[in-house]
Amino acid sequence: MTQPCFMPLGDLMTKLEDGELTSEAIVRSCLDRIAEREPTVGAWDFIDPELALAQARARDGEPRRSPLHGIPVGVKDVLDVVGMPAAWGDQATYGHRRPERDAPVVQRLRELGAVILGKTAVSRFGFWWPGKARNPHDPSRTPGSSSSGSGAAVADFMCPLAIGTQTSGSVMRPAAFCGVVGLMGSHGWITWANSRDYAASFDRVGVYARTMAEARIGYTQLTGRPAPAPDSRRLRIGLYRTHQWPEAKPYVQAHFEASAERLVAAGHVVEEIVLPPIYDLMWDAQPVIGEYESYRSFIWEMEHARDSLVPGLEELLLSGKSISIEGYNQAIDLMRSLRARFADDIRGFDLIMTPGSEGEAPAATGVGSNMFIRQWMMTTGPIIAVPAGTGPNGLPLGVQFIGRPEDDAAHVGRVAVLAEVLQGNTPKGSEPV
Amino acid sequence: MTQPCFMPLGDLMTKLEDGELTSEAIVRSCLDRIAEREPTVGAWDFIDPELALAQARARDGEPRRSPLHGIPVGVKDVLDVVGMPAAWGDQATYGHRRPERDAPVVQRLRELGAVILGKTAVSRFGFWWPGKARNPHDPSRTPGSSSSGSGAAVADFMCPLAIGTQTSGSVMRPAAFCGVVGLMGSHGWITWANSRDYAASFDRVGVYARTMAEARIGYTQLTGRPAPAPDSRRLRIGLYRTHQWPEAKPYVQAHFEASAERLVAAGHVVEEIVLPPIYDLMWDAQPVIGEYESYRSFIWEMEHARDSLVPGLEELLLSGKSISIEGYNQAIDLMRSLRARFADDIRGFDLIMTPGSEGEAPAATGVGSNMFIRQWMMTTGPIIAVPAGTGPNGLPLGVQFIGRPEDDAAHVGRVAVLAEVLQGNTPKGSEPV
Repeated sequence: MTQPCFMPLGDLMTKLEDGELTSEAIVRSCLDRIAEREPTVGAWDFIDPELALAQARARDGEPRRSPLHGIPVGVKDVLDVVGMPAAWGDQATYGHRRPERDAPVVQRLRELGAVILGKTAVSRFGFWWPGKARNPHDPSRTPGSSSSGSGAAVADFMCPLAIGTQTSGSVMRPAAFCGVVGLMGSHGWITWANSRDYAASFDRVGVYARTMAEARIGYTQLTGRPAPAPDSRRLRIGLYRTHQWPEAKPYVQAHFEASAERLVAAGHVVEEIVLPPIYDLMWDAQPVIGEYESYRSFIWEMEHARDSLVPGLEELLLSGKSISIEGYNQAIDLMRSLRARFADDIRGFDLIMTPGSEGEAPAATGVGSNMFIRQWMMTTGPIIAVPAGTGPNGLPLGVQFIGRPEDDAAHVGRVAVLAEVLQGNTPKGSEPV
Repeated sequence: MTQPCFMPLGDLMTKLEDGELTSEAIVRSCLDRIAEREPTVGAWDFIDPELALAQARARDGEPRRSPLHGIPVGVKDVLDVVGMPAAWGDQATYGHRRPERDAPVVQRLRELGAVILGKTAVSRFGFWWPGKARNPHDPSRTPGSSSSGSGAAVADFMCPLAIGTQTSGSVMRPAAFCGVVGLMGSHGWITWANSRDYAASFDRVGVYARTMAEARIGYTQLTGRPAPAPDSRRLRIGLYRTHQWPEAKPYVQAHFEASAERLVAAGHVVEEIVLPPIYDLMWDAQPVIGEYESYRSFIWEMEHARDSLVPGLEELLLSGKSISIEGYNQAIDLMRSLRARFADDIRGFDLIMTPGSEGEAPAATGVGSNMFIRQWMMTTGPIIAVPAGTGPNGLPLGVQFIGRPEDDAAHVGRVAVLAEVLQGNTPKGSEPV
């Protein structure tokens, strides 16, 4: 029999429901997988097998609270989990912290009866400096940052779902590089409270799964909203290259065009969309807000733990310090304006399609770029990255779909259909032969 | 010469600028006032004269950073201030906490060179149970909750500006009962991060001042936005009684009508506005969101410090626990819908005018009601309470003005004009004879 860790989420849910599997058996399988693969992948900042198994046994002894009852979920180590350290990827500075309150998404997972498997690895402070996690498809490569461990753990069959967070590109980049789905609803879709903030105007929770069908379950359960039906219409997709297009590797450009052709072949309409010139400003404006707010979030470290800052971070924070409140307000006003007008500016289209990254995952000495990701924080709507085949080195390449602000359920229903088409040749990574 | 604590903010700014006053002299005057009046008013949870004076001397030795440089400001004890306890009105449970990071509004005050005078008293946990603060106009009465100390301190000339917070009615109620201006921009106008959250969908920072002209300075400085010019047009004011109108004391009803007549006499247009029936839902929906989120914010207390919960709070939290996520989502969807349509639904009007409270401040064994306040959290736009005379016992009565979401500057500019009319007979409270 296939080990539970390799089973699709839907199968696990059915087998738990039918009594064919226990949560303990699933968690044990995930822990075995982690024991085997963790030395190579490094996806976890904190894992305590006994704590995970104790949760699983407790869930097995209770009435099922939800379809996710008994399902193990990894949580990025920037979100507070009671009973686990909140180290933000920096054991030396923060390893002693034990939060008193769960982050809201963790509370929700507990209400659903999910098992909090452990804290997934994060690049230190959630910034771009490489952490210990490696890309499970090629351990010499990065899984992307900063939700590095969440992307890698799901891709490597260590858990079926994991929670990540994004301020600029931290959910979408690991999704693209690890070949998994990364799903975020509109800003605020899941409350960000009581955990460490980076830039409150952007900070968002995201969910990882190996397929869009599984991510859709995560969306439905986390939000308590009805399952969005796959949108069965012929969808109108706005293909948007952005002015970073020339920076994409030629094989990414070719892959992106080919992905569009596959969607057309499946009966959808893909047309180049031209956005008004104001959208050209979003790429530069995003870091104005991000750095301004991050500096203010890191004043304690600047004053008391400057040595703990990873290279480049101090410069970023000082850059944030140098931004005037007028410049910041201008960027905030742009964001509000785009949020208000985006639905209308893409009229005639159901969603926007962009490349997920500029290339395959680079060497693990870096974390790759967010050049196709960060600007979409400015429209504040749902973003979903789906795996869509591989590049020249056999590593995953992804496509990103941008929806209208607060139109999350419809967006999920649409991407569910498109992902079916694109996932045809998704690499299976480290799946056992 | 008038003591600095009694001077209008504009005069203090000018005298600091001109070198006629030092920050130290102003802070000393405020501290003298506090020493004299605190036994009666109880407006402070934490004040350390030496800490305040040290800040003032440091500011006096520096180049001026802003018009608020050297001005003392009180900060409600639910917002984190480095160097001061974060006790949330409960010394026994939380008096030991010393936050590592300032709340964003406190960071901003420090950037402006303001002196953080101390932490103002809050009803325990920011809920409605009466705290130690008393109404400076009549110490047998409540100043309202939960920003009790901020409202009372400003009304009693202990500081020219104070920061409060509101989840349901906690800025506007003390403003109405203490006869001061309470100003809040749209939800998110000042980032709420890192401090204790109550209900993240609503939690907002507000600023108190004795006059609208002073509150306008606070708005301008805190946001870094250009000073909104007083709107010199003949304003169209939508008079909205709400279906709580019959609950208002007859003298409030008469006062409200008289306030409207004064605005008409000043050349403005006041007309009854009829809002679509969907607005009837907002009063009941607000606590659904508030209680659902507050329960999740207070799980630690429910499990570890249940005895510390004030009477009624446990019931509120259990009520929040019993709300289904579907019911919560329905209320959230209503809020989003109202936020999106409110500007259009009040077309033809510049703003909405409602009573500020159902009566004068009641006895200090209670804190009064938020029945005219809480529903406006559902439209998410700017809210400003201005003092508008007195009731039968000579205690303040206020009027509340509601603006379009994210139209904060224009709203401030409009209320600046209306407040001039209404403040004609504001009681001067404990001003020296």
